[in-house]
Amino acid sequence: MNEYREIKAGIVGGSGYTGVELLRLLLQHPQVTVTALTSRSEAGRPVVELFPSLRQQLDLTYVSPNDTALTDCDVIFFATPNGVAMNMAPALLEKGIKIIDLAADFRLKDVRQWERWYKQPHACPELLNEAVYGLPEVNRKAISQARLVANPGCYPTAVQLGFLPLLKHGLVAPDSLIADAKSGASGAGRTLREDLLFSEVHGNFRAYGAGGHRHHPEISQGLAIVNDGKPVSLTFVPHLVPMVRGIHATLYARLKEEINHRENFKISGDFILQSIYEDMYKSECFVDVLPQGSHPETGSVLGSNFCRLSVLRPESSDQVIVLSVIDNLVKGAAGQAIQNMNIMSGFPEEMGLMGPPMYP
Amino acid sequence: MNEYREIKAGIVGGSGYTGVELLRLLLQHPQVTVTALTSRSEAGRPVVELFPSLRQQLDLTYVSPNDTALTDCDVIFFATPNGVAMNMAPALLEKGIKIIDLAADFRLKDVRQWERWYKQPHACPELLNEAVYGLPEVNRKAISQARLVANPGCYPTAVQLGFLPLLKHGLVAPDSLIADAKSGASGAGRTLREDLLFSEVHGNFRAYGAGGHRHHPEISQGLAIVNDGKPVSLTFVPHLVPMVRGIHATLYARLKEEINHRENFKISGDFILQSIYEDMYKSECFVDVLPQGSHPETGSVLGSNFCRLSVLRPESSDQVIVLSVIDNLVKGAAGQAIQNMNIMSGFPEEMGLMGPPMYP
Amino acid sequence: MNEYREIKAGIVGGSGYTGVELLRLLLQHPQVTVTALTSRSEAGRPVVELFPSLRQQLDLTYVSPNDTALTDCDVIFFATPNGVAMNMAPALLEKGIKIIDLAADFRLKDVRQWERWYKQPHACPELLNEAVYGLPEVNRKAISQARLVANPGCYPTAVQLGFLPLLKHGLVAPDSLIADAKSGASGAGRTLREDLLFSEVHGNFRAYGAGGHRHHPEISQGLAIVNDGKPVSLTFVPHLVPMVRGIHATLYARLKEEINHRENFKISGDFILQSIYEDMYKSECFVDVLPQGSHPETGSVLGSNFCRLSVLRPESSDQVIVLSVIDNLVKGAAGQAIQNMNIMSGFPEEMGLMGPPMYP
Amino acid sequence: MNEYREIKAGIVGGSGYTGVELLRLLLQHPQVTVTALTSRSEAGRPVVELFPSLRQQLDLTYVSPNDTALTDCDVIFFATPNGVAMNMAPALLEKGIKIIDLAADFRLKDVRQWERWYKQPHACPELLNEAVYGLPEVNRKAISQARLVANPGCYPTAVQLGFLPLLKHGLVAPDSLIADAKSGASGAGRTLREDLLFSEVHGNFRAYGAGGHRHHPEISQGLAIVNDGKPVSLTFVPHLVPMVRGIHATLYARLKEEINHRENFKISGDFILQSIYEDMYKSECFVDVLPQGSHPETGSVLGSNFCRLSVLRPESSDQVIVLSVIDNLVKGAAGQAIQNMNIMSGFPEEMGLMGPPMYP
Repeated sequence: MNEYREIKAGIVGGSGYTGVELLRLLLQHPQVTVTALTSRSEAGRPVVELFPSLRQQLDLTYVSPNDTALTDCDVIFFATPNGVAMNMAPALLEKGIKIIDLAADFRLKDVRQWERWYKQPHACPELLNEAVYGLPEVNRKAISQARLVANPGCYPTAVQLGFLPLLKHGLVAPDSLIADAKSGASGAGRTLREDLLFSEVHGNFRAYGAGGHRHHPEISQGLAIVNDGKPVSLTFVPHLVPMVRGIHATLYARLKEEINHRENFKISGDFILQSIYEDMYKSECFVDVLPQGSHPETGSVLGSNFCRLSVLRPESSDQVIVLSVIDNLVKGAAGQAIQNMNIMSGFPEEMGLMGPPMYP
Repeated sequence: MNEYREIKAGIVGGSGYTGVELLRLLLQHPQVTVTALTSRSEAGRPVVELFPSLRQQLDLTYVSPNDTALTDCDVIFFATPNGVAMNMAPALLEKGIKIIDLAADFRLKDVRQWERWYKQPHACPELLNEAVYGLPEVNRKAISQARLVANPGCYPTAVQLGFLPLLKHGLVAPDSLIADAKSGASGAGRTLREDLLFSEVHGNFRAYGAGGHRHHPEISQGLAIVNDGKPVSLTFVPHLVPMVRGIHATLYARLKEEINHRENFKISGDFILQSIYEDMYKSECFVDVLPQGSHPETGSVLGSNFCRLSVLRPESSDQVIVLSVIDNLVKGAAGQAIQNMNIMSGFPEEMGLMGPPMYP
Repeated sequence: MNEYREIKAGIVGGSGYTGVELLRLLLQHPQVTVTALTSRSEAGRPVVELFPSLRQQLDLTYVSPNDTALTDCDVIFFATPNGVAMNMAPALLEKGIKIIDLAADFRLKDVRQWERWYKQPHACPELLNEAVYGLPEVNRKAISQARLVANPGCYPTAVQLGFLPLLKHGLVAPDSLIADAKSGASGAGRTLREDLLFSEVHGNFRAYGAGGHRHHPEISQGLAIVNDGKPVSLTFVPHLVPMVRGIHATLYARLKEEINHRENFKISGDFILQSIYEDMYKSECFVDVLPQGSHPETGSVLGSNFCRLSVLRPESSDQVIVLSVIDNLVKGAAGQAIQNMNIMSGFPEEMGLMGPPMYP
Repeated sequence: MNEYREIKAGIVGGSGYTGVELLRLLLQHPQVTVTALTSRSEAGRPVVELFPSLRQQLDLTYVSPNDTALTDCDVIFFATPNGVAMNMAPALLEKGIKIIDLAADFRLKDVRQWERWYKQPHACPELLNEAVYGLPEVNRKAISQARLVANPGCYPTAVQLGFLPLLKHGLVAPDSLIADAKSGASGAGRTLREDLLFSEVHGNFRAYGAGGHRHHPEISQGLAIVNDGKPVSLTFVPHLVPMVRGIHATLYARLKEEINHRENFKISGDFILQSIYEDMYKSECFVDVLPQGSHPETGSVLGSNFCRLSVLRPESSDQVIVLSVIDNLVKGAAGQAIQNMNIMSGFPEEMGLMGPPMYP
C-alpha cells in the first residue's frame, strides 16, 4: 500500500516486560511482522498464555532460541538478560541479519570496564567497536548504516537527552553533573525479587545503587563524547518510585563562571537556555521541550516514545536544572529499539510509534 | 487510500477524562478528524495546555459550544455532564448531524424514571424513544440506522455483557441477579471532590451507593429486554478501587432448578456454560471469552476496547459466577462511542480501535 | 505497676508479614516480652536487618526453632506456613505452653476436609477437637480456658462477623449466602510469586480462587455453628486489590420470605436490621457498627484491630447487604491472635490493642 | 501513676491531615488530654464523622475557634493554614498558654522574607524573634524555655537533619548544596486541587516549584546558623511521589578541597563520614543513622517520629550523598510538634511517640 518493503522481525527473550512491549508496539507497525519469538523456558506456549493482554491480536507461539524461524528474520531484537546477545550475535550477523540489543552487551566501548560492571568475560569484544550506540538524537547517521545497534539503557536515555544541549554548547562545568533519577518498578523487569513484591514497593520510596550503578559508565561515556571527548564527572543516584512505568531524571549542573557572568546571561539566562534546548531538539520528533516554567510529568508520556524536557535556572543562581521524563519501556527500551529499526531499515523514523500516550 | 469516506467529528465537553480519551482514540482513527472541541470554561486554550500528553500530536483549541465549527461536523460526541446533550441535541439532529451521547440523557426509556434518578426535568422526552441504546453486541442493527445513540454507562456495559448469555438462554432465575462491581477512580471523572483526592483513595477500598445507584435502572432496563421483556431483580453494589482505570464486575446468578437438575448439566454444566458464552460472543471482535478456569484481570484490557469474560460454577453448586472486565474509559465510554460511530458511519466496527492494551 | 503478671512470648516463623506485625503490636503491649523469635533460614540475624522499621525499638535475634529460648515461653505464636504448628504443638503443649496458631492447622474440625484442602496428612488429628477456634466474639469463654487456639483466617474473620447477626436471628435463607471479598496483597505474605510483583498488582484488579478457596470450608464451618448446627450454602469469591493492607467483604443474603413479609419489616426493616447489629455487637470492643447508610472503608481500620460493619437493604428488596472491613494483618491475623492471648492470659481483652488506626 | 502532671491540649484547625494526626498521636500520650478541637467550618460535628478511623476512641466535637474550651488549655497546637496562628497567638500567649504552630507563621526570622514568600503582611512581627524554631536536635534548650515554638516544615526537617553534620564539621562547600526532595501527597493536605486527585497522582511522578518553594528560605536560614552564621547556597527541587506519606531527601554536597585531599580522607573517607554522623546523632532518640551502604526507605518510618539517614561518597569522588527519610505527617509535622510539647512540658522527649512504624 505504500513505498516501503515489509520486513520480518524476531525477538529473542520475549517473556519479559521489554519483550511484550516490543510485541505491543510492533503490532501497530505497518511494515513489520514478528515471525519468531523465542524463550528457552516457554518454548511451545502461545504468547497469550503469558500475556492475556495480547489475546485476539496475536497468534504466536514461543520457540526455542535455535529455531530456524529466527534466522529467517531481517532484524532481531534481543530482549534478554545481559550476556545473551554477545553469544548469538556473531553468527546472526554473518547471515546478514541486523541486530538490536536492548541489553547492555554492546553499550560500552571499553571491554575492561564492561567486564568490571557486568562481571563476566565479554564473548565478542571485537564487535564492540562496530556496534553503534543507538541514541538517534546523537548517532542517527551511524545507526542508519549499522548492522549491530546497542540500544541505550533507560536511565542513560533520559539523562543524556537532558544534559546534551548544556554540554554541546559548553555551558556547564563538566565536573559538576548530578543526575538524581527516579524509575517505576517495571525497569527491574519481571524478576522474582523480594524487594520488588507489591507489598514492598507500594507506598514506599527509596534510593538504590547510590554507591555505583551499571548505567553510570554508560552515561559518562555518552556525555564525554559530546564534551569534545573529554571525560565528565557525574554523580548518579537512581530511586525506585511506587509506579509501574516512567523515569523522571532531575539533572543539576553548574554554569561555567564565564558563562554566568556574561552580561546577556545575567539579564536573560533563562531565555537563552530555553532557546538552546528548543533549537537543539526542534527537528526531533520524539523530544519535546516544554514551555519555560513547566514541570514535565511521567504520566504525560506513558506508552509513548516521547521524552519531555524542561530547563530552568532557579532565581538567577549558577545552577541549571533539567527535568527529563520518558516511559522506561518505550523511549527507554522497546520504542527506541523500533526507532532504531526504522532508521536501519530506511523507514520514516516515527513509523508505528506515534500512538498517543495514555492519560490518565 | 481506502474505500471509506473521511468524516469530521466534534466533541462537546472535551476537558474531562472521557473527552481526552476520545481525542486519544480518534487520533488513531484513519477516517476521522476532530474539527471542533468545545469547553465553556476553556474556550480559547489549546488542548495541550490541559493535556500535555497530547503535545506534538494535536493542534486544536477549545471553542465555545456555540461555535459554528461544531455544526459543521458529521458526528458529535457529548462528553458532558448529564443534562447537557438533551438541550443541544434537537437542533443538531435537525441539521443532519449524528449524535452520540456519552452521558446518561438518552439511556432510559422511561422519562419518569430518568427524572427520578437524574433529579431534573428531561428537556426532550420525545427523543427518548428514537434514541438507540448503544450496546453494539445487542443493538448493532438499530445503531447502524440511528441518528442518536445513547452510549451505555461503564458499569452497565460490563454487567450486561456478563449476564446476557445467561438470560438469553433462560438459564438463571431473573430475580437472583447480583452485580458486585469495582471501578477505578477515573470513572468519577476529573471532579473536585474530597473523597477523590489521592490521599483518600490510595491504599483504601470501599463500596458506595449501595443503597441505590443511577446505573441500576439502566442495567435493569437492558437485562429485561433480553429476558423477553420481563423485569429482572438485580442487586448492584459499586466499589471504588485504588487504581485509575478498569472495571471488574463479579456477577452472581442462581441456575433455574429445572436447568440445574437436567442430567447433562449435572455432568458437564461447566462445559455447557463455557460453550454458551463462546458461541454467543464468537463473532464479536471486542468480547473475549477466556478459557475455563481463568480469572480476567483489569490490567489485561487497559487502553483497549476489549471486554474479557469468564464463567464458572463453583463445585457444582447452583450459583453461576461471571467475571467481566473492561477499561471504563474505553469500552465503558470513549471506545464504545467510537465503535458506535463506526457502525453508524458504515466503517468496519473495529476501525481505529485495535491498539493493543498496555501491559504492564 | 498494675495487677497483671508479665509473660514471655515466643514467635515461630517471625520473618513474614504476620510475624513482624506480631512484633509491632507486642512491642506496645504492657505485659508481654517477646523472648524468642525463630526462623530456620534467618537464625543468627538481628530482626532489624530484615525489618529496619523496628530499629531502635527491638534488640532481638532470630534463633533456630529448636532453641531452648522457645520452651521457656508462656505462650507461643505460630506465624508459619500451614503444616508447621501441628508438628511442634504436642511437645510444647506438654510443657504447659499455650499455643496460638495463626496458620490453618487447627481451624477445621473435620480432618478429612483439612487434608483435602491442605493436601497433606494431619500430624495430630487428636488435637483438632481440643483446639478452640479463636473468634472471640463467638468463642470467648472457650478461648479463656484453651491451651491451643486456632486463630481464624483473615477472610473468615471479616465474613463471619458480617453474617453472624443475620444467621443467629434466623433472618436469612442459609442457602443464599454470597461473600464477595477483596484483600490487599499482604494477605498473600512475603512469598516470591510472579503474580505478586509490584508491576503485576499495581493498577490491576482480579478475582482468584473463584472455583474454590481454603477459607471456604472454614467460613462454612463457623456459620453452620451459628445456624443451629445446620449447614449453610455459601458462594465465596476472593479478589486481589492493589493495596497492601485491608479486607473488604461485601456480603449478600436473602431475607427469609416469612421475615420479609412481616408487617413490621415492610415498614421499618432497615431500622430492625440496624438494631440487631448494634445490639449484637454493643459490648464488643473491636466490632464497630456504623450508622445506617454508611460505607465502611478499609482505610479506617489500618493498623488497628477493629472490624467496622454496616448493614443495609436496598430499596426494600429481599436482599440484605453487609459491608465488613478489617486490617487483614491485625484483626485478620496478629491483632486477633493477641486478643486471644489476652483472653487466655486473663488480661483485659483490648490490652495493648487500642492504638488508633493510621489515617490517611 | 507516674511523676508527671497531666496537661490539656487544644488543636486549632483539626479537620486536616495534620490535625487528625495530632489526635492519633495524642490519644497514645499518657499525660495529655485533648480538650478543645476547633474548626470554623465543622463546629458542632463530632470528629468521628469526619474521621471514622477514630471511632470508639474519641468522643470530641469540633468547636468554634473562639470557644472558651480553647483558652482553658495548657498548650495549643495550630494545624491551620499559614496566617491563622499569627492572629491568635498574642492573646493566647498573654493568657499563659504555650503555643506550637505547625504552619509557617513563625518560622522565618526576617519579616520581609516571610511577607515575600507568604504574600501577606505579618500580624505580629514582634513575636518572630521570640519564637523558637522547633528542631529539637538543634534547639533543644531554647525549646524547653519557649512559650512559642515554630514547628519546622516537613522538607526542612528531612533536609536539615541530613546536612547538619556536614556543615557543623565544615566538611563541605556551603555553596554546593543540592536537595532533591520527594514527598507523598499528604504533604499537600486535604486541599481540593485538581492536580491532587487520585487519577492525576497515581502512577505519575513530577517535580513542582523547581523555580522557588517556600521551604527554601526556611532551610537556608537553618543551615546558615550551623554554618557559623554564614549564608549557604542551596538548590532545592521538591517532587510529588504517588504515595500518601513519606519524604525522601537526597542531598548532595561537595567536599571542601582541603578535606578531600587530606591523607586520612583519601583512605577512609567513608568511614570518617559514617563516624561523624553516628557521633552527632548517637544520643538522639529519633534520628537513626543506618549502617554504611544502606538506603533508608520511607516505608521504614511510616506512622513514626523517626528520621533515618545514611551517608556515602560514591567511588571516592568529592561528592557526599546523604539520604534522609521521615514520615511527613509525624517527624515532619504532628510528631515533632508533640516532641516539642514534651520538651516544653518537662516530659521525656520520646513520651507517647515510641509506637513502632507500620510495615508493610
